[in-house]
Amino acid sequence: MERPVIGITMGDPAGIGPEIVLKAMKNIEMYTVCKPLVIGSLDALESIEKVIETGLKINGINEVDEGLFCHGTVDVLDVDGFDTGKIKFGKIQKEAGLASYKYIERAVLLAKKNEIKAVATGPINKEAIKAAKIDFIGHTEMFGGLTGTEDPLTMFQVHSLRVFFLSRHVSLRKACDLVKKDRIIEYVKRCNAALKMLGVERRKIAIAGLNPHSGEHGLFGDEDIKEIEPSVEALRCMGIDVEGPLAADSVYYQALKGKYDAVLSLYHDQGHIATKMVDFEKTISLTIGLPFLRTSVDHGTAFDIAGEGIAESISMEEAIKLAALYSKNY
Amino acid sequence: MERPVIGITMGDPAGIGPEIVLKAMKNIEMYTVCKPLVIGSLDALESIEKVIETGLKINGINEVDEGLFCHGTVDVLDVDGFDTGKIKFGKIQKEAGLASYKYIERAVLLAKKNEIKAVATGPINKEAIKAAKIDFIGHTEMFGGLTGTEDPLTMFQVHSLRVFFLSRHVSLRKACDLVKKDRIIEYVKRCNAALKMLGVERRKIAIAGLNPHSGEHGLFGDEDIKEIEPSVEALRCMGIDVEGPLAADSVYYQALKGKYDAVLSLYHDQGHIATKMVDFEKTISLTIGLPFLRTSVDHGTAFDIAGEGIAESISMEEAIKLAALYSKNY
Repeated sequence: MERPVIGITMGDPAGIGPEIVLKAMKNIEMYTVCKPLVIGSLDALESIEKVIETGLKINGINEVDEGLFCHGTVDVLDVDGFDTGKIKFGKIQKEAGLASYKYIERAVLLAKKNEIKAVATGPINKEAIKAAKIDFIGHTEMFGGLTGTEDPLTMFQVHSLRVFFLSRHVSLRKACDLVKKDRIIEYVKRCNAALKMLGVERRKIAIAGLNPHSGEHGLFGDEDIKEIEPSVEALRCMGIDVEGPLAADSVYYQALKGKYDAVLSLYHDQGHIATKMVDFEKTISLTIGLPFLRTSVDHGTAFDIAGEGIAESISMEEAIKLAALYSKNY
Repeated sequence: MERPVIGITMGDPAGIGPEIVLKAMKNIEMYTVCKPLVIGSLDALESIEKVIETGLKINGINEVDEGLFCHGTVDVLDVDGFDTGKIKFGKIQKEAGLASYKYIERAVLLAKKNEIKAVATGPINKEAIKAAKIDFIGHTEMFGGLTGTEDPLTMFQVHSLRVFFLSRHVSLRKACDLVKKDRIIEYVKRCNAALKMLGVERRKIAIAGLNPHSGEHGLFGDEDIKEIEPSVEALRCMGIDVEGPLAADSVYYQALKGKYDAVLSLYHDQGHIATKMVDFEKTISLTIGLPFLRTSVDHGTAFDIAGEGIAESISMEEAIKLAALYSKNY
């Protein structure tokens, strides 16, 4: 099977993005699983190369088909339309925010034309994006807006554990309010469809419980009985392979061991804690439902260490690997 | 330093207790860290020995000072007052429930007389306890009742990560209600005292946030600002080294890496998920505040596999090791 071209947006040039992208390219596995194409700025990469000395040859190109995709050379689609010359590492800068947005814009354009199969994104900075007067608050919103996708789905993956979220950036009390039968049914249907898009053949989905021990038969909290149980019943009628509610303190472990192919987390921290405690660096966020797959590192620009050459590229490599793996079917 | 005598209650004779206790005794480390004394029934141990064939010599004794505490021999304080002769593996039985209670009663008696330094408990069965008409619903309640301790404190430990719980067996909504400044202050003071009892010299305690990203400055949920922040301020005035609220999806990881000596979990699953995803088998529960230390495996009697010889003793060994480690200072 031909290696898919994976676009790797460099992230904010003032952050650790250029460094982790370059370090990731040292790993030959990136070239066995895909044709990695960095979408960023040559000067930022050349400047960090002086610090980290990977010895890799940086190959600036203007079109995807100019790429060599051969380990030892880093193919960089050099994006213009801003001035990176004055960008300093470790600072919130308007130009850097604009640049990070332009990389994404270009990636979306290439993905729409099918010149790249998926996008793995380096970290951007919300403040810099704001300073550049870009009207999106985050990565997912940009991808949604630029592709006209209304409500993309977020999935976390760490090792073989996949997690979806019934809600994320709302208070814990509000998250409890959102545990409703109809919402769960709609959501699990979307999760099931998303797994299909990723090419996951067995799709046994577990729904975590909301209360401790799933409420222990109504002893503490009744959402597990009143909302989750009937949703599971309805979903099974529709032929979706779902189980739940399952005690949150063991279901993630069971899924990691292979019993379930995905878990629906009922609130932000339930699934975030579960994935990050397995392997903090390898917890990757996937955006599903766009016309193409997008994966992302789950860390920020780390301005405090940017430019020092000490950032690790494990997350970036994992994001690229998952983009390559799943884009085959997507 | 002399090895402390650790009492190991065998748990429900119909469960995997006898098996995991015997298997643990095969591990010579149990004898380097302590003088392990099994408190249980000779016949149950002899019957499972026929299945698992550890080759260990079972040494029935009536007094602690008859113990040899030498690897290769298992010293068993044979408890009477019930008939274990007819007990079958894998079933809820009145006699088995009674036996499991009697082991604990004896352990408490010996610990009160200082003949054993700490107790590591094997799994008991709530239904069997009920069938035996014992008026305690669980282990912790038994130890509390038998020692006249009103409100013992539970701490989880996995590897070097220690976790306390502001609340446990209440609904998630109720747990949110319990996140109150005064309660947190009282609780963290108790956690700090408990760490002192365990001999933990540096006691940097982290308080996890309640809402995602600790509410992101009040954007989703205000408990982090209104209740946790002022409690931290008050506690620091008292000279307690505490930080918080810290985003729940990274604070447990940071503590595991050594940044904090303990984390206060704000609800059951927050800390349960965090510990169990690190290492399910090695997550140990400690009861602090009794006149002696008690540690416990965090699994049940596993009636479905009892008597088959396939249960693993990792948890039991870890519980014994922690009992030995911490009882030195307790």
